Amino acid sequence: MKNNIAIIGLGYVGLPLALSLSKYFNVIGFDKSQKRLDQLQNKLDYNKEIPKKEFSSKNVKFHNLNEKINSNINCFIITVPTPVDSRNKPDLRNLISACKFISKRKNKKNLVIVESTIAPETTEKICLKIISNNSKLKKKDINICFSPERINPGDKSSQLKNLTKIVSGNTKHSVKEAVKVYKKITKNVVVAKNIKSAELAKIIENAQRDLNISFMNEVYEICDLYELDYKHILSLCRTKWNFVDFKPGLVGGHCVPVDPYYLIEGLKDKGFKSNILHTSRKINEKFVYYIFQKILKKLNKINFKKIFFYGINFKDNVLDKRNSKYNQIFLKLIKKYPQKVFLGDEKSFNIKDFNVDAYDVFIFGSKQDKTNKLIEKIYKKTNSKKIIINIFGNLKIRDNKKVITYNI
Amino acid sequence: MKNNIAIIGLGYVGLPLALSLSKYFNVIGFDKSQKRLDQLQNKLDYNKEIPKKEFSSKNVKFHNLNEKINSNINCFIITVPTPVDSRNKPDLRNLISACKFISKRKNKKNLVIVESTIAPETTEKICLKIISNNSKLKKKDINICFSPERINPGDKSSQLKNLTKIVSGNTKHSVKEAVKVYKKITKNVVVAKNIKSAELAKIIENAQRDLNISFMNEVYEICDLYELDYKHILSLCRTKWNFVDFKPGLVGGHCVPVDPYYLIEGLKDKGFKSNILHTSRKINEKFVYYIFQKILKKLNKINFKKIFFYGINFKDNVLDKRNSKYNQIFLKLIKKYPQKVFLGDEKSFNIKDFNVDAYDVFIFGSKQDKTNKLIEKIYKKTNSKKIIINIFGNLKIRDNKKVITYNI
Repeated sequence: MKNNIAIIGLGYVGLPLALSLSKYFNVIGFDKSQKRLDQLQNKLDYNKEIPKKEFSSKNVKFHNLNEKINSNINCFIITVPTPVDSRNKPDLRNLISACKFISKRKNKKNLVIVESTIAPETTEKICLKIISNNSKLKKKDINICFSPERINPGDKSSQLKNLTKIVSGNTKHSVKEAVKVYKKITKNVVVAKNIKSAELAKIIENAQRDLNISFMNEVYEICDLYELDYKHILSLCRTKWNFVDFKPGLVGGHCVPVDPYYLIEGLKDKGFKSNILHTSRKINEKFVYYIFQKILKKLNKINFKKIFFYGINFKDNVLDKRNSKYNQIFLKLIKKYPQKVFLGDEKSFNIKDFNVDAYDVFIFGSKQDKTNKLIEKIYKKTNSKKIIINIFGNLKIRDNKKVITYNI
Repeated sequence: MKNNIAIIGLGYVGLPLALSLSKYFNVIGFDKSQKRLDQLQNKLDYNKEIPKKEFSSKNVKFHNLNEKINSNINCFIITVPTPVDSRNKPDLRNLISACKFISKRKNKKNLVIVESTIAPETTEKICLKIISNNSKLKKKDINICFSPERINPGDKSSQLKNLTKIVSGNTKHSVKEAVKVYKKITKNVVVAKNIKSAELAKIIENAQRDLNISFMNEVYEICDLYELDYKHILSLCRTKWNFVDFKPGLVGGHCVPVDPYYLIEGLKDKGFKSNILHTSRKINEKFVYYIFQKILKKLNKINFKKIFFYGINFKDNVLDKRNSKYNQIFLKLIKKYPQKVFLGDEKSFNIKDFNVDAYDVFIFGSKQDKTNKLIEKIYKKTNSKKIIINIFGNLKIRDNKKVITYNI
C-alpha cells in the first residue's frame, strides 16, 4: 500500500474506479460538487450503480477539489465529464480544471492518466500543455497516459473487473506504470501503440453504436410508412447469420450521443467532414420528435384527464435522467398539456400510496425497477378504464377489459 | 417426384437452388443467356461456386427462356438479377420478363415464388399485376410468394442447406406450399406475417452491412488524417465487448451496393428520404477513388516500367468481376498508364509460364486462389527489385532485399 492515487471526478466512471482501486492503493477521490461528496461520505451512490457494501474500504477518502490535501500523490486519474454545450461543441472546462489542479501537485515522477473521452490528440496537445505550463515541468518530464473508460451504466455484467482496459502513454515508463495500476482491477490490459490511437478507438466504439441505432430509427420510421411491425421485421432480419442485433432507441446519456461530436469537431480542425457521424447524430437527435408526435397523435384520439409518465431516465435500469430523451418527451408533454401530466420519478416514487385511479393514461418510457410493480398495480387496483402507452412496446402488458395498451 | 419446379434465372442464386431442389423434385432451369446454358449443360459453373459433382442429378434440365417446354409446372421460382442502371435506379426488366414468361403457364393451382431482391410491395404491386394481366387470372386466384435469397458468393459455410429461409405469401395456401418446397433443402424456414415484411427485411440486412462498411471506410480515411494505423485502431475497438467487427472495403457485387437503392427508390414514392442509406452509398461509391488516389500517390514516387494487377474480382475468393471496385481501379490504372498495366485474371492465369521479371510493380486487389502462389513465385524467381502494393494489406508478405511491400 505504498501508492497514493487521486481520482478527479467521482461520477459513474470515477466512483467505481476509486472504490475498486482502494482495495490495493490509498485512494483520494476529488469532486467539485459538495452535494455528491456528502452522498459519498454517507456511503451512498445516488445513481445506485454502486451498492453500499462496496463503500466498505478504509483506503478511500472523498474531498472537494478546493480542499488542500497534503498527501503525496503518485498517480492522478482524470475521470471528469466531457460533455457538449448547447451547440454540441465539446466543453472541456472540467478537463482543463482537472489538469490545472494536477499541475500544482505534479513532479517528474508521478503519473497522470486521462480516462475521460476526448478527441484524438487532446491528451498531448491540451492536457500535457496545460500541465507543463502550470507546473513549469518540461513536457518530456511529464508522464501522461490515456486509458479510455468503458463503464456502461445499468449493465451489471460489464463492470470494471470484467473489462479489457486500453492503456496508452507518452513514454514506455508511463505505460508501464499505468499497466501496473489497471492490472490489479481489470480482467485484461491492452497497450495501444500511441495515445491518439486509444483516443480515437474509444470514440469509434460509441460512434458505431450511435450509427447502428440511427439506422434502426430509420427502419422504425420506414416500417410506419409501409404499415409494418418493426419488431417483426427485425426478428426476420435476425434469422440471417450476420445480422447485427440493434434496436431503435432514444439515444441519451453521456457517451453515445456525445462522443461523436468530439470526433466531429476534431475532424473539422483537419478539414474533414464525417458524413456518417453527422447523419447518425441528426437522425438520433430528431427521432425524439418523431416519437413525441406519435404519442400526441394517439392522445389526440383519446379523451383523457390526467397522464402519469413513468421512466424518464436515459435508459433502462439507470437512475440518471441527465441528457435523457425520455425526459425530453415528458417535458414536451407538460408544455403541451399543462396541469395534465405528472411524473413518477423512480427515485422517490412510493408505489404503496399511489392512487391508480387519479390518472386515466399511463405512459411508460425507460424501464425501471418499479415499472412492473406499477403495471401490476394498475391491473389489480383500477376501478376505471385505463390507457397505457408503451414506448417501443418494451413492456409485456396483457390487455383486459379495463386496460388497453398502445405500443408506440 | 410429382412436382415440376421451374427456376427462372440460373445465376449464383438460381443454379444452387435448381441443383439442390433437383434432389427432391423435377427441376427445369431457365436462363436467357445461351452462353450460360451451354456451360451448365457441360456441368460447368463458370463462377466455380458449384463443383462439377453437384451437377450429377438427372432431375434437372436447362433451357432457354425462348424454348417451348410442354411440362406442367407446379411451381415457378424467380431468381433473376435485379440490378440498378447507370443512375442507380432499379432495373426490373428481368423480373418483368420472368413474370410474363410465367403468366403464359400460370393456372389457378400452381405457385409463383419470387426470390430476387425487390423493394417492399413489388411482389404484389408489380409481379402479381403483370401475371394477372397477362394470364387473365384474377389476382385472388394467383398464388404468389416472396422468399428472399441469402446466397453469399465465395462463402462456403453459408450455403442453402445451412440457411434460414424466410417465406411469405399472399394466402395461407401459398405459404404452406412454399414452405413444403424449402423445408426439403434448407435448415430452417421462418414464415413472415406478410409479403412486404419479407421484402423489407431482405434489404435491411444488406443495407446494414453497407452502412457499417461505409463507417469503416470513413474510419480508414480518418486514420490517414491522424497518421494512424487503422488496423491497430480496430484491434483496440474489438477489445470492447459490444464492438461489431466490420472492416473497410471496396463494396462491389450484386447485393450490398445494389439493394439499398431499391429501398431508396421505394421510399421516394412514399415521400421519404433515407439519410443513412444515401450517406452510406455515397461514401462507399466514393471510397474507390480514395483508394485509387492512394495507389497513384505511391506510384508517383516510384520509377516503374510495367505493373501487374492481380485480383480484380469483386471480393475475396469469388470469380465474378461484374460490379467490382477492384476492376474499376484496374481500368482507371490502364487509362492513367496506357501500355504499362497488365491484368492477371484468376480464370485464365497460367502461373507456370508467368515471367515475374517482365514487371517491376505488382498490385494485389481481392485475394484469389492463385494469389499466394504468385507471391511465392515473386519471392523465389525474381532477379530484380520488385514493389508490391497490397490493397488493405490483406496479404501477409514478408519483405526481403528484392521485394518491398506497401500496404494501402
